[in-house]
Amino acid sequence: METGIYYEDQHCLFRVWAPERERVRLKIVHPFMGEFQMVKVDGGYHQLEFDDIPGGTRYLFSVDGGEKFLPDPASHFQPEGVHAESEIVDHESFDWHDRFWKGICFDKLVFYELHVGTFTNEGTFEAIIPRLDQLVDLGINAIELMPVTQFSGTRNWGYDGVYPYAVQNSYGGPIGLKKLVNACHEKGIAVFLDVVYNHLGPEGNYLKEFGPYFSKKYCTPWGEAINFDGEWSDGVSAFVVDNMQHWFEHYHIDGLRCDAIHEIYDASAVHLWEKAHCRLKTLMEKHGRLIHLVAESDSNNPRVVMPVELGGMGFRAQWLDDFQHALYVLIDPEGASRYSDFGSIGQLAKAFRDGFVHSGEFVNFRKKRHGASSAGISPDHFVVFNENHDQTGNRVQGKRMASFLDPQRLKLAAAVCILSPYVPMLFMGEEYGETAPFQYFVDHSDPTLLEAIRAGRKAEFERLNGNEEPADPKSLQTFLQSKLDWKLRQSEQGSDLLAWHRKLIALRKSLPALQSKNRQNLQTNILSDAVLEVVRFSDDGKQTITCVFNISATENEYPIGKKFAAFDTILSSNGNVDGKQGRSVSPDELLHLAPWSVSVLC
Amino acid sequence: METGIYYEDQHCLFRVWAPERERVRLKIVHPFMGEFQMVKVDGGYHQLEFDDIPGGTRYLFSVDGGEKFLPDPASHFQPEGVHAESEIVDHESFDWHDRFWKGICFDKLVFYELHVGTFTNEGTFEAIIPRLDQLVDLGINAIELMPVTQFSGTRNWGYDGVYPYAVQNSYGGPIGLKKLVNACHEKGIAVFLDVVYNHLGPEGNYLKEFGPYFSKKYCTPWGEAINFDGEWSDGVSAFVVDNMQHWFEHYHIDGLRCDAIHEIYDASAVHLWEKAHCRLKTLMEKHGRLIHLVAESDSNNPRVVMPVELGGMGFRAQWLDDFQHALYVLIDPEGASRYSDFGSIGQLAKAFRDGFVHSGEFVNFRKKRHGASSAGISPDHFVVFNENHDQTGNRVQGKRMASFLDPQRLKLAAAVCILSPYVPMLFMGEEYGETAPFQYFVDHSDPTLLEAIRAGRKAEFERLNGNEEPADPKSLQTFLQSKLDWKLRQSEQGSDLLAWHRKLIALRKSLPALQSKNRQNLQTNILSDAVLEVVRFSDDGKQTITCVFNISATENEYPIGKKFAAFDTILSSNGNVDGKQGRSVSPDELLHLAPWSVSVLC
Repeated sequence: METGIYYEDQHCLFRVWAPERERVRLKIVHPFMGEFQMVKVDGGYHQLEFDDIPGGTRYLFSVDGGEKFLPDPASHFQPEGVHAESEIVDHESFDWHDRFWKGICFDKLVFYELHVGTFTNEGTFEAIIPRLDQLVDLGINAIELMPVTQFSGTRNWGYDGVYPYAVQNSYGGPIGLKKLVNACHEKGIAVFLDVVYNHLGPEGNYLKEFGPYFSKKYCTPWGEAINFDGEWSDGVSAFVVDNMQHWFEHYHIDGLRCDAIHEIYDASAVHLWEKAHCRLKTLMEKHGRLIHLVAESDSNNPRVVMPVELGGMGFRAQWLDDFQHALYVLIDPEGASRYSDFGSIGQLAKAFRDGFVHSGEFVNFRKKRHGASSAGISPDHFVVFNENHDQTGNRVQGKRMASFLDPQRLKLAAAVCILSPYVPMLFMGEEYGETAPFQYFVDHSDPTLLEAIRAGRKAEFERLNGNEEPADPKSLQTFLQSKLDWKLRQSEQGSDLLAWHRKLIALRKSLPALQSKNRQNLQTNILSDAVLEVVRFSDDGKQTITCVFNISATENEYPIGKKFAAFDTILSSNGNVDGKQGRSVSPDELLHLAPWSVSVLC
Repeated sequence: METGIYYEDQHCLFRVWAPERERVRLKIVHPFMGEFQMVKVDGGYHQLEFDDIPGGTRYLFSVDGGEKFLPDPASHFQPEGVHAESEIVDHESFDWHDRFWKGICFDKLVFYELHVGTFTNEGTFEAIIPRLDQLVDLGINAIELMPVTQFSGTRNWGYDGVYPYAVQNSYGGPIGLKKLVNACHEKGIAVFLDVVYNHLGPEGNYLKEFGPYFSKKYCTPWGEAINFDGEWSDGVSAFVVDNMQHWFEHYHIDGLRCDAIHEIYDASAVHLWEKAHCRLKTLMEKHGRLIHLVAESDSNNPRVVMPVELGGMGFRAQWLDDFQHALYVLIDPEGASRYSDFGSIGQLAKAFRDGFVHSGEFVNFRKKRHGASSAGISPDHFVVFNENHDQTGNRVQGKRMASFLDPQRLKLAAAVCILSPYVPMLFMGEEYGETAPFQYFVDHSDPTLLEAIRAGRKAEFERLNGNEEPADPKSLQTFLQSKLDWKLRQSEQGSDLLAWHRKLIALRKSLPALQSKNRQNLQTNILSDAVLEVVRFSDDGKQTITCVFNISATENEYPIGKKFAAFDTILSSNGNVDGKQGRSVSPDELLHLAPWSVSVLC
């Protein structure tokens, strides 16, 4: 690892990358030791070695004689926030209990996305720990934390992080995250981090003072792209690849979800993802522990999950937004206005069967043909969900599904997602139908920036929704309202929905037919505009499971007599179904399907 | 083909792409027929059909009620230049004589790059025809024309073209090019075009009036990149892929050399080169004729020539600049200052053996690690040369090698290139040591633009060379000076060098060991700082050819007794060598190598 300081046994190699700077000075602030001229070495790094540096020592850098001392771009901890001193973290001193933890194979995962600040009242890593048993009970074996790197203030979704190596102070900092990971591993839960390598936040970002982290060659929604292929880009690529190693080695993180990789540009012959892939492969072999890279990608490009050896980007998996969109527009009357290129049950069938719904078609929203086919790609390369932070938070008032859909539709949606061939993910609170909003909130201190954010969101929502007013992102209230209520979990409706999710996850884990990764072991049949039959076969051919989804507000009929001589009902949200085991049927018999229902038969 | 007008049998479908324009008017100017409102159809095209339109009809378009009528972005001919009417070309009326022409396999090609305006006094396509026999005699079987699409004025390298479908009027227009291709095919010469899909020239470019041809997402040295992946980019990709088809079908072109593809950005799941590959594959099957795509790429990325099925870009070959640089710095004392990352004989050996010299090393010029290894990639995927339009024209005074290197070094360089395992290319006049410069010239009419060009070149050369003054690009003299002299060809020195090239090409074509495409059939041995031995084996193992290059101004010795019991000298520029066939040698015998010499032994 080239990036950042190296600390072990009181010995500290201070190290900072500033290839176009001639002189970097180090100031050791607490305990105060004074200022020191660093030595420039190969690769544009400046470094200086000390013995007898206690953990917790705070320091700053100044470049080329500048008066102002700045925090370390690769700081591991910013105890006083984004504008103040960096602190040395003694990673060796933590008492890990997960010696035998090897990670979990990706295809076995059931994800739970959570935001540390709003998951609990306390809003800290440690406060999550007492809730882990509930997640285990539900069947969850992976939590995915929205970004936890240091951002300005105490409230943020996390995508405004400006210290990619530092753990948010208000969440409990490095120790807090380690305690959480430790506890998770003890309970058999993998921990994924959402990491942002496509931009840095707007406040507390001093990276430009140090080096050419940004490129004028590519423009992103956040301005200049990160410089992964221009002059001095080796140091920037190292900054990112070392960051992956940092989470893996210092925090025992099991996987990284890389935010919006379609805004990461690297035209080098050996691109960032190939470098990442090689590094992580080596590390997994060294430590005997898994780490998975998951992409958020907007490009419907099957190369994202193809091996680098075949010209792919080598991600273990990518989020499959098309799956969410295809279902969502069918169950929410407002859906079609949000995703106007979706709306047919055939698209949902395609999402089940192939993955990408847009695989080369002209897409009105994009005004171009979009995507390529993912048919044949093993389904464990995709993560699916009914909602995530974006689908909720990017609605004007941050509404979750449970606040505008009835329990029937929530159950149907859960079944579609969890019984799919893909790796499923729930968004915190989804399991019991949380109705608190998940709104967009920030806690920047720069008033100009805040005004720009307010104006930007207002303009966006006016375009989308007309007259609804978004909550003020800076208001504390907006943040507090977005916390999970948890009371609903105990309510009749909440516990019913929770039990439903538990049952679905248990089915997924127990039925061989639901576990086949062979695309040929899944067939979709569109029986009407509203009824989709998904038939799954186990790899050994011995088990067949039929899922019948009635995706409409009206009753429908399923020609069960044409399909079965006798059948068991494994699971049903359909009040009309006779749940008796091994019931034989006559050839003409029809199964009545209640509105918004699912029936799992075998 | 969606792009441009479709004309057949006096029937004309006028068609222009303007997806964000509501109304496009067509004005048929000559013979005058008046103005017509076009009809907008799918994909953003506007069209209108007519019968009884004679070939040669001239027309213009105006968009959204604009007063100004503009030429067709996909015009096939601009008889009066870039600002005037477009003309319909009746492609069917041309009398092709190449019915049985199938093209030439790429690995058999010997290229000759030429600039139409300066190759002959006349500066036209037709004037090239009488010179073809000389090229055939030399062994050339492919000419590559510097860009011939319509640019402003009458003098230009061609990279300022603004009508990618139109053939330069001052070169002889469509008929002239067809006559040249016809004549070439009759003589067994393939014709390649240099095509520019990364930008358009600065004068006469009206494309923005019609559609979003440009993208703000990527910045190139010429400003905004061409829009291959943003909104409405399908039409832009079609503009390029249809252009390839245009050259293949209307002009029987055998291959396209795509200029600077590293400045072409397309992050779509199905990128431009995959679309091009699919189209050309279909066309080759339909017509039973080859078309090759060759890339100029700055990225040392082996994926350029990998099949699209393996995540590559699918080019048949790419120019191998590293090969030129590796040799050039060894034979020109000024070389090292031009290419400071080159200079060791080991790099030349690597260029012979693997292709890319920079395959992941830190490159000072780029301030980053550059490239990936091309080891193992079949050598017929690379085109090599000792000079091309860039290497000459981008020197301050456009000096060719022959004006600053002695005949010994010219012969040595020719042997290195032509006896390499790669597909060789000569730059017009190189074969007889032309000493006229090849300077940068333009003929724009916009004075502001001319001033900017003059200032830009001056600044660039001041940076590179200090005090030499570049010629004025706009001066007619600059252009006239750059024409081939041809007199030198008859001189003793010129005809000697010409004979040498002829002999090298003949050897390349006749010796099986020089034709093997198996990388394992080539070995390089560095015998000293100056002596490189390249041993080639035929695929059947029966022939071994040893090329000994003495790349220094001093004599050297080759331990021939250690390598051979007896040997033949096939070719030598080494006065000291005994050329007798089958001469036996004693184990200690040394072969004296003259300065800057090559010896080909077997």
